[in-house]
Amino acid sequence: MAQKLAKYLPILDWGRQYKGETFVNDGIAAVIVTIMLIPQSLAYALLAGLPPQVGLYASILPLVAYAIFGTSRAMAVGPVAVISLMTAVAAGKIAAQGSPEYIAVALLLALISGIMLFVMGLFRLGFIANFLSHPVISGFITASGILIAVSQLKHIFGVSASGHNLIDMLRALLANLPQTNAPTVVIGVLSAGFLFWVRGRLKPALMTLGASERLATIGTKIGPVIAVVVSIAAVASLGLADKGVKIVGDIPKGLPVLSVPEFDLALWRSLLASSLIIAVIGFVESISVAQTLAVKRRQRIDPDQELIGLGAANIAGAFSGGYPVTGGFARSAVNFDAGAETPAAGAMTAIGIALATMFLTPLLYFLPIATLAATIIVAVLSLVNIADIRQAWTYSKADFAAMMATIILTLTVGVEAGVLSGIALSIGLFLFRSSRPHFAVVGQVRDTEHFRNTARHDVVTNPRVLTLRIDESLYFANARFMEDAVYDLVFDKPEIEHVILMCSAVNDVDLSALESLEAINERLKAASIQFHLSEIKGPVMDRLEKSHLRDALTGGLHLSQLDAIKATSGTSHGTELDFHL
Amino acid sequence: MAQKLAKYLPILDWGRQYKGETFVNDGIAAVIVTIMLIPQSLAYALLAGLPPQVGLYASILPLVAYAIFGTSRAMAVGPVAVISLMTAVAAGKIAAQGSPEYIAVALLLALISGIMLFVMGLFRLGFIANFLSHPVISGFITASGILIAVSQLKHIFGVSASGHNLIDMLRALLANLPQTNAPTVVIGVLSAGFLFWVRGRLKPALMTLGASERLATIGTKIGPVIAVVVSIAAVASLGLADKGVKIVGDIPKGLPVLSVPEFDLALWRSLLASSLIIAVIGFVESISVAQTLAVKRRQRIDPDQELIGLGAANIAGAFSGGYPVTGGFARSAVNFDAGAETPAAGAMTAIGIALATMFLTPLLYFLPIATLAATIIVAVLSLVNIADIRQAWTYSKADFAAMMATIILTLTVGVEAGVLSGIALSIGLFLFRSSRPHFAVVGQVRDTEHFRNTARHDVVTNPRVLTLRIDESLYFANARFMEDAVYDLVFDKPEIEHVILMCSAVNDVDLSALESLEAINERLKAASIQFHLSEIKGPVMDRLEKSHLRDALTGGLHLSQLDAIKATSGTSHGTELDFHL
Repeated sequence: MAQKLAKYLPILDWGRQYKGETFVNDGIAAVIVTIMLIPQSLAYALLAGLPPQVGLYASILPLVAYAIFGTSRAMAVGPVAVISLMTAVAAGKIAAQGSPEYIAVALLLALISGIMLFVMGLFRLGFIANFLSHPVISGFITASGILIAVSQLKHIFGVSASGHNLIDMLRALLANLPQTNAPTVVIGVLSAGFLFWVRGRLKPALMTLGASERLATIGTKIGPVIAVVVSIAAVASLGLADKGVKIVGDIPKGLPVLSVPEFDLALWRSLLASSLIIAVIGFVESISVAQTLAVKRRQRIDPDQELIGLGAANIAGAFSGGYPVTGGFARSAVNFDAGAETPAAGAMTAIGIALATMFLTPLLYFLPIATLAATIIVAVLSLVNIADIRQAWTYSKADFAAMMATIILTLTVGVEAGVLSGIALSIGLFLFRSSRPHFAVVGQVRDTEHFRNTARHDVVTNPRVLTLRIDESLYFANARFMEDAVYDLVFDKPEIEHVILMCSAVNDVDLSALESLEAINERLKAASIQFHLSEIKGPVMDRLEKSHLRDALTGGLHLSQLDAIKATSGTSHGTELDFHL
Repeated sequence: MAQKLAKYLPILDWGRQYKGETFVNDGIAAVIVTIMLIPQSLAYALLAGLPPQVGLYASILPLVAYAIFGTSRAMAVGPVAVISLMTAVAAGKIAAQGSPEYIAVALLLALISGIMLFVMGLFRLGFIANFLSHPVISGFITASGILIAVSQLKHIFGVSASGHNLIDMLRALLANLPQTNAPTVVIGVLSAGFLFWVRGRLKPALMTLGASERLATIGTKIGPVIAVVVSIAAVASLGLADKGVKIVGDIPKGLPVLSVPEFDLALWRSLLASSLIIAVIGFVESISVAQTLAVKRRQRIDPDQELIGLGAANIAGAFSGGYPVTGGFARSAVNFDAGAETPAAGAMTAIGIALATMFLTPLLYFLPIATLAATIIVAVLSLVNIADIRQAWTYSKADFAAMMATIILTLTVGVEAGVLSGIALSIGLFLFRSSRPHFAVVGQVRDTEHFRNTARHDVVTNPRVLTLRIDESLYFANARFMEDAVYDLVFDKPEIEHVILMCSAVNDVDLSALESLEAINERLKAASIQFHLSEIKGPVMDRLEKSHLRDALTGGLHLSQLDAIKATSGTSHGTELDFHL
C-alpha cells in the first residue's frame, strides 16, 4: 500500500531521505531560479495577453504541486513561451484580451488541460504524445518562435496591433508604425541589444574574469533581471511614462486568492480541443527536459507519473489564478546547474515567488513593457532552429514535408491548424510508406548460407524457385501490395514452381495479411505453384500456428531460408525432402 | 504512343488477337450471364429503392465501358447487393424513395464515384483502398448482408416498413406485421425455400444426373430465373395481383435515354463522402474478384487500370439512367466458368440485356416483388460470414475489435458510420501496436554466433554490455518508447559500460527516431556509457551515413552483432579493437 502510494506520490520516496546538505543545495538553486523566474513570469503573462500578476501566480502553487507529484528531480515548471502563445490564441477565440472573461478562459485552459494530463497519467495514456513526431514538434516550435517574436515587435515600437498569424500581425504592425513612440523604441532596442550581448558574450567575459563555467552560465541567465532593474530606474528617473512609454503599472500586491473556476458546459466543450493540444505540447516539452536532466544522473523518469505531476501543477494553477504551465528548458537547466537535488528546490522557488508577489510588486510599477518584450524576443529566437530544417531535408523528404507543412500552416493559419496538420501528415506519410514497403527478389550468395538481393549481389538463383523478401511487417495497408508484388513476379513465367516469401523483416502478420497469404496460396495453387514462407520469427510463427494457413499451405513454413531452398530443390530431383514439418 | 494508349485501353491489346473461337466462347458465356443477370438486376434495383428498369440500364453501357477500359478478362460488372444498399442509404438521406429526385441522386452517385475512381486510377491512388483492412471489409459485408436480408422481409410479408439501421427496420416491420398479406407470404416463402434448395442441393442432384461439375455449378445460378418464371405464371394465372400481391408492373420498354446528369454544386458536395465510400468499397470488392480470376490463368490485373475501368463503367451508367455498379463475385465466377476469355463477353452480355430491355419487359409485368426479395435474401445470406468472426477472435484480438466495431456500428448506426469507424479503429490499433513494439534483451547463444532473447534462451551475457533488440522499424510513434526502454534498462546499473541496440528488425529509422538515437547517445555519454548500433540493414545504413549520429556515436555502427560484441569486449581488456570503422 505504502509502496503503491509512493508510486503516485514520489515525494514520499525522496522526502524520507531528505538531508540537511540537500536542503542547502536545493535552497541555493531556488534563490537563483526565483530571480530568473520573476521577469520571465511577467514577460510570458504579457505574451499570453494576461495581467503580469497571473504569470507570478502561475509560478507558485504549480511548483508545489509538481514537487509532490513529479518524478524529475531538477525540473522547474512555470509559464513558458510556446504555451503562453497557445493560451493567447485559444483564449482570444472566446474573449477579448484584457477582459475578465479572457482571464477566466486562460484559467480554465489550465484546469482542463491539467485534468486531461492527470487522467492520461492515471490511464497510462502518455503514448498519445508519441504521435507528435520530431519534425512536427521542431517545425511547430520554430514557427511559434517566429510568431512570438513578431507578436512582440508592437511593444518595441510602442504601437498596438493584433492578429493570430504572421500575415495579420505584420499587416497590423505596418499599418500602425506611424504611431511609433520614440522613447519606447530606445528602451526596447537597448534592452534587446543588451540581452543579445549577455546571451552571446557575457559567458566568455565572466570566464575570463575567473568565474567557473557553471557560474558563468548561471550569470548569463540573470541578464534579464539587470535589464529590468536598469530600465525601471531609467523610466522612473526620466519620467518616461508620461512620454508615452507603456509600463506595467499597478500589480495587485499579495498572494493569489484561491478560487474555484466556473463550470459552464458549453464553454468547457469549446475549450476541449485547445486544451488537449496545450496539454500534449506541454507534456512533450516537459518530458524531454525531464529526461535530459534525469539521465545525466542516471535517475529515472516515469512518463505516466510525469503526466500526473504536470496535470497536478496545472490544476493547482487553475485554483490559484494562474494559466497553463509546463517544464521549461532554460529554467530547469539553471536549476540543475545551480545544484538542485530534489523537487524541494521547486517548492522553495514557489516560496521565493510568493514573497516577491507580496513585497516586490510595487517596485515593478515603472517596468516598461518594451523591456519585457525584448526579453521574450531574445528568448524565443533561440527556438527558431534552421539547422533542424536543413537536417530534415538531407535525411528524409517525408520528414521534411511534415516539418514544412507544420511551419507554413502554423505561420499562415494558426498554431492549432499547424500542429494538427503536421500530425495528420506525419501519420499519413508513415502509413503510406509502410503500405509500399521495400522488397527484393533474393538469391543465395555463392558458397554461403546467406541470401541477398539479386539486384545488388552476385547470387545463385533457380528459375523454378522465386524468393521474395518483403522488408516490413505485413498488415492490412500493404497486404494487397504484397499480393500484387507476388502476382507481378509470377505472371508470364510458366517455369516457376515454387514461390518463397522470406519473412526476416516481418515483425507481425495481421489478419488482413494472413488472408492475403491464404489468397496467394490458393491462387498459386490454381496455377500449380507451391507457396512457402521462410525465416519466420518466433512470435509470428506462434500466430501462424493458430491459423488455417499452416495446413492449407502448399509449400511449408520454414524457420530458415536454407531449409526452404532444400525443400524446393528436393522436389526438383524427384525426391520429396520433408525438411519443414 | 500506341503502347501507352494500349496501357489505358486494354481493348487494343486483346482486341488485336481476337479470334473466331474466342468469339464463340465469349458468346456462350454472355448468354448464360445475361439470363442470370436479368432477375439480379431487377432485384438489386428494388434493394436500392429504384424502379426495376434502372437495374437493367445499369447492366448495359457500364459493361461496354468496362470491356474497353478494364484489365480483367472475365469479370462481370453490374449492380451488386452491398453497393445497392449503400446507394439506398445515401440517396435516402437526400430524397424520398420513388421520387424523381431519388433516381437523379442515385445516378449522381454513380457519376461522382465513377469520376473519383477514374481520377484515382489516373493518379495511381489505388493504394487508398488498402486502408480498408480485411476485418473491416468482412465485418462490413456481414453486417450489410444482415441489413439487406432484414430490409427485404417487408416484401416477403407484403407490408411497408423503412429504416436505415437494424433496430429501426425491425421496429417498423413488427409494427406493420398485422397488415401481412397471405398470398405474398406464400410466394415469398416458397421462392426462398426453392432458392435455398437450389443453392444447397441442386448441384449434387445435377451431378448425379450426369452433368459435369462446371455445368452443375452454372445450373444452380439459373435457379432465380426459374423462380421468376414460375411466380410470374402463378400470379398471372391466379390473379394474385388483385389479392394484394405487389408486382413489378409496367417497366418502360426500350433502351435507356442517354442524358446528362444535372450539376448542382451543393448537391454534389453533399454526395462527396457517400460517393467516396461507394467508390472504395466497390473497388475493393471488384479488385478481389478480378484478382481471383486472373491468377487462375496467370493473367495480370493492373489495379490502377481497374480503377479507370470501374470509373468508366460508373460514368457510362450515369449517362444512361443507371446507378453505381461494380464487379460482382457470383456473376464473374459464372462468366469465368462458362468460358469467357475476353471482356468481349461483357459487351455481348450488354447486348443481351439491351435486347431484354427492348422485348422482355412486358413479360415481367406480373413478377411479384416477394420473389425478387427472396432472391436477394438467399443471395445476401451467403455474405454473412461467422467463420471470419471466429477466426479473427482466435488470430488477433485487435483485428477482432476492428471487425466487431464495424459490424455493430453498421447495424446500429449505419453503413457509412460502420465503415469509417472500422477504418479509424484499425489504423489506430496498428499505430498503437507499432508504438509499443516487442523488444528483448539478448545474449549470445553458447558456442554460436547467434544472439537471442535472454528470457527465452540459455545465453551468455556480459554485465558490462547490455544488448537490446527492438522488433519494429523505428519511427516517431515508438521513438520515445525506445528511449524509455533504454533508460529503464540502464537506470540503477552502474556496471553497464556499453549499450548495443540490435537493429535486425529495423526496416527504417525516421528523423524522430534518429533524434532519439542521438538523445540516447548524448545522455548515455553523460553517464559514461558507450552506445552502439548493430545489424543495420543496407537502406538504413545509407541513411545513417548521412546523419550527424555517425560521427557523434560514442560506440560504433556495426554490420553484425558479433562485430559489436568484439568491439565492446576489446575495450574491456584494455586493447581498443576497431572492428567497426
